[in-house]
Amino acid sequence: MSRVAAIIGSGVIGGGWTARFLLMGWDVRVFDPDPEAERKLAEVLTNARAALPGLIDVAMPPEGRLSFHTCLGDAVSGADWVQESVPEHLDLKHRVFVAIQADCRPDAVIGSSTAGFGLSQLSQGALRPGQIIVVHPCNPVYLLPLVEVAGTEGPLLDRACALLSSLGMYPLRLRAETDGRIADRLLQSVWREALRMIRDGVATTSEIDDAIRMGFGLRWAQMGLFESCRIAGGDAGTRLCTEQSGRSLSQPSGGPNDAPGPADGLTNTVAEQSGALSGLHSIRELQRIRDTNLVTILRGLKAQNWGAGAVLRRHEQALAAVVAKPEAPMITSDRAVPLDWTDYNGHMNEARYLQAFGDATDRFMEIAGCDAAYIAAGHSFFTAETHIRHVDEVKAAARIRIETLCLRGEGAKMHLFHQMFEADRLLATAEHFLLHVSLETRRVVRPRPPVADRIAALAAAHAALPRPEGIGRAVGRR
Amino acid sequence: MSRVAAIIGSGVIGGGWTARFLLMGWDVRVFDPDPEAERKLAEVLTNARAALPGLIDVAMPPEGRLSFHTCLGDAVSGADWVQESVPEHLDLKHRVFVAIQADCRPDAVIGSSTAGFGLSQLSQGALRPGQIIVVHPCNPVYLLPLVEVAGTEGPLLDRACALLSSLGMYPLRLRAETDGRIADRLLQSVWREALRMIRDGVATTSEIDDAIRMGFGLRWAQMGLFESCRIAGGDAGTRLCTEQSGRSLSQPSGGPNDAPGPADGLTNTVAEQSGALSGLHSIRELQRIRDTNLVTILRGLKAQNWGAGAVLRRHEQALAAVVAKPEAPMITSDRAVPLDWTDYNGHMNEARYLQAFGDATDRFMEIAGCDAAYIAAGHSFFTAETHIRHVDEVKAAARIRIETLCLRGEGAKMHLFHQMFEADRLLATAEHFLLHVSLETRRVVRPRPPVADRIAALAAAHAALPRPEGIGRAVGRR
Repeated sequence: MSRVAAIIGSGVIGGGWTARFLLMGWDVRVFDPDPEAERKLAEVLTNARAALPGLIDVAMPPEGRLSFHTCLGDAVSGADWVQESVPEHLDLKHRVFVAIQADCRPDAVIGSSTAGFGLSQLSQGALRPGQIIVVHPCNPVYLLPLVEVAGTEGPLLDRACALLSSLGMYPLRLRAETDGRIADRLLQSVWREALRMIRDGVATTSEIDDAIRMGFGLRWAQMGLFESCRIAGGDAGTRLCTEQSGRSLSQPSGGPNDAPGPADGLTNTVAEQSGALSGLHSIRELQRIRDTNLVTILRGLKAQNWGAGAVLRRHEQALAAVVAKPEAPMITSDRAVPLDWTDYNGHMNEARYLQAFGDATDRFMEIAGCDAAYIAAGHSFFTAETHIRHVDEVKAAARIRIETLCLRGEGAKMHLFHQMFEADRLLATAEHFLLHVSLETRRVVRPRPPVADRIAALAAAHAALPRPEGIGRAVGRR
Repeated sequence: MSRVAAIIGSGVIGGGWTARFLLMGWDVRVFDPDPEAERKLAEVLTNARAALPGLIDVAMPPEGRLSFHTCLGDAVSGADWVQESVPEHLDLKHRVFVAIQADCRPDAVIGSSTAGFGLSQLSQGALRPGQIIVVHPCNPVYLLPLVEVAGTEGPLLDRACALLSSLGMYPLRLRAETDGRIADRLLQSVWREALRMIRDGVATTSEIDDAIRMGFGLRWAQMGLFESCRIAGGDAGTRLCTEQSGRSLSQPSGGPNDAPGPADGLTNTVAEQSGALSGLHSIRELQRIRDTNLVTILRGLKAQNWGAGAVLRRHEQALAAVVAKPEAPMITSDRAVPLDWTDYNGHMNEARYLQAFGDATDRFMEIAGCDAAYIAAGHSFFTAETHIRHVDEVKAAARIRIETLCLRGEGAKMHLFHQMFEADRLLATAEHFLLHVSLETRRVVRPRPPVADRIAALAAAHAALPRPEGIGRAVGRR
């Protein structure tokens, strides 16, 4: 039997909750008096359905049933979970909790998405104060795992955390009631410092955004403030940073070179806590983990041509432009194996071979005139068939080279044979059969004249070259 | 002819500079009186050589020459770039600049990695003050693109920025001299707020780190503070956040529900600046870009089993555990196509087909008893050969299913045939030939008894099933 969640308020945050519950198989009942609520929620759901299921490599449970309710009582009645995400006005929240508790099950979890109200403020005047807990997520709720939880210790809180984990989230149980959760306090401090800089004409919004996403923001996607610091400077570095910042806790803004002041004995606390945590790995191991994480993030963004990834792509293009014109044997790739291309066997993963060969095919196409402009104009080659032989292993950071032979280039058909080497060592071969298509009709059509001619010329030139062993082989045959 | 960089001080930051210059083809001369400098630098270089070249898909220039110098004058003489990264003491920096300028070329760039000193403080008493500029990077310098630059406007500053770009970096020119660069001011504000929470017992270092890396840190790897806010709440959301935070600029710490105060007319400035920037894309487009970026970051971290990626992996395993036992046709994969698996042709990239088929092979191996524990004990199957036929296209978010047939399982040999479907539509087939190996000797050996028996049993059971079309095919043959 499906579990039921009631969503009270379905704006950006409530809509994100709706999407996460629904896609994790819960039935969701929405109450939101906004006449536009249904349309706005549909937009969030479209985004979530595109993004969330592809996060993992197995099937999600069947999507739950979504219903809209004009009466709050109908929405919450019998629900296992009630999530309140109404605007941040305490009076409003109090009225909503009264209405919820009038009709919901006494053992239902009532979660509040509040960013800033404390538990005791929220539950003031409630029928069953212990039933209300802070369950504060991070936008977009359907993708980011963080959810900060604060409530009365007991079975309800434990059950709430277990349910949040089953939604793929990371419940962070808060140890003290504070205005603003941990994440929001940090965010607020950044907001204030950012606004001071804008007020003083020191920086614009886009410069501040770039200072984040081109630098420490990349680091923080995988390790936080303290672990990053420890990895960079070890125990001494953490102590130094703590002392420097500890001097100015009472100041709204302070530079790293503030005059000395009381460090509040914090230095030891921080060093002990962060040492105990990071102590599970050596600093060198952590550096390698950090670097592999950063490589995978940066390469991922490069594929999207966004942010730091767009910087990388421009750099790659500048470097590619100085590569000499390829001659026979035509070199279509010369590169290092990225840190994140290895698998549990310790060598380059089989799919990455095809990624490297696919890049080599793209380079061949480019040389033949089938470049970004040609593709933008509506034509391309699609791979129809591929045969890969794995001859030898290769590890991360190795420099690999691909040599390409055009076996055939006639009409819409193109037949390529790639060989991958590390120095003189053959690592793999790939035989590709491609068809030229119209991107509009998705049908096979002949290439435009310049491309057709160039491929025919390349095939003719390559016909004179020696044929490597392994062409035309079927799997398992010699 | 190679360009020459002189690195003065080769600790964490200077070492990172050394690595970036060297791997980008510059000759690098290092001066650092620390007797351990050479050993420490070797560690940084090992990490950088593993990580940096794999960031891009083309060859890096040949590595430059590295030399150590006991005399600062020798190191800087004739260099194109001198980078100072000595400890943050103004007296020391002044002495170092005097020594540098005594021997360096007058047209060389002298960059200071200082985190907190302003340009005028730095260049006080210098022989040629205009030659010194702030060039403040982000750790690890060999991976992160951000570098904040401040100097006297003119050809030297322009040349410095162009050279930094040619190193693959993102020079952010500061518009005002401030103690602490933009990034460091933001970081310092987070440090202070984090230390206040630790002091008050509200959170530990690891809780603060988790609040970052499980939440907004993931967002900030690709969009900063203002763009993230605008996407979540539109223009109104940005105004609201600015007003809330703008009330408490003079306070060291403030919750989102602070009492109203003067907003300094900031709201309009922020709304205009952030609107102009993000206005290039619609909010909906930006949401899709953000989600695709987050999916690629989260999936990258999942492959590394780290941070938010480890949360995803646990969730995936919990979901996988409830999947019914596979029967004939054996279903080895049932999943959605991730948002970041499509390419410039708008459909799933060819390498991702092999990734999906590879995952299906892993699942088959698991069913046959070749699971994580078996692999950890030193045995696995390596793919020797693969033949893929692309039959039809598939788009992001589509749900795909793979059915697997064991054609043969004898001794060390395993022969599989996968078919990929979207509902009843055949998308692709993959024929794999695998060999069982010892992970210690990397040689072909027979599987251990339980695995050998299970594969033989599966092959025998599958022998009775109908053979799909396309087995044993060579590329380009019918």
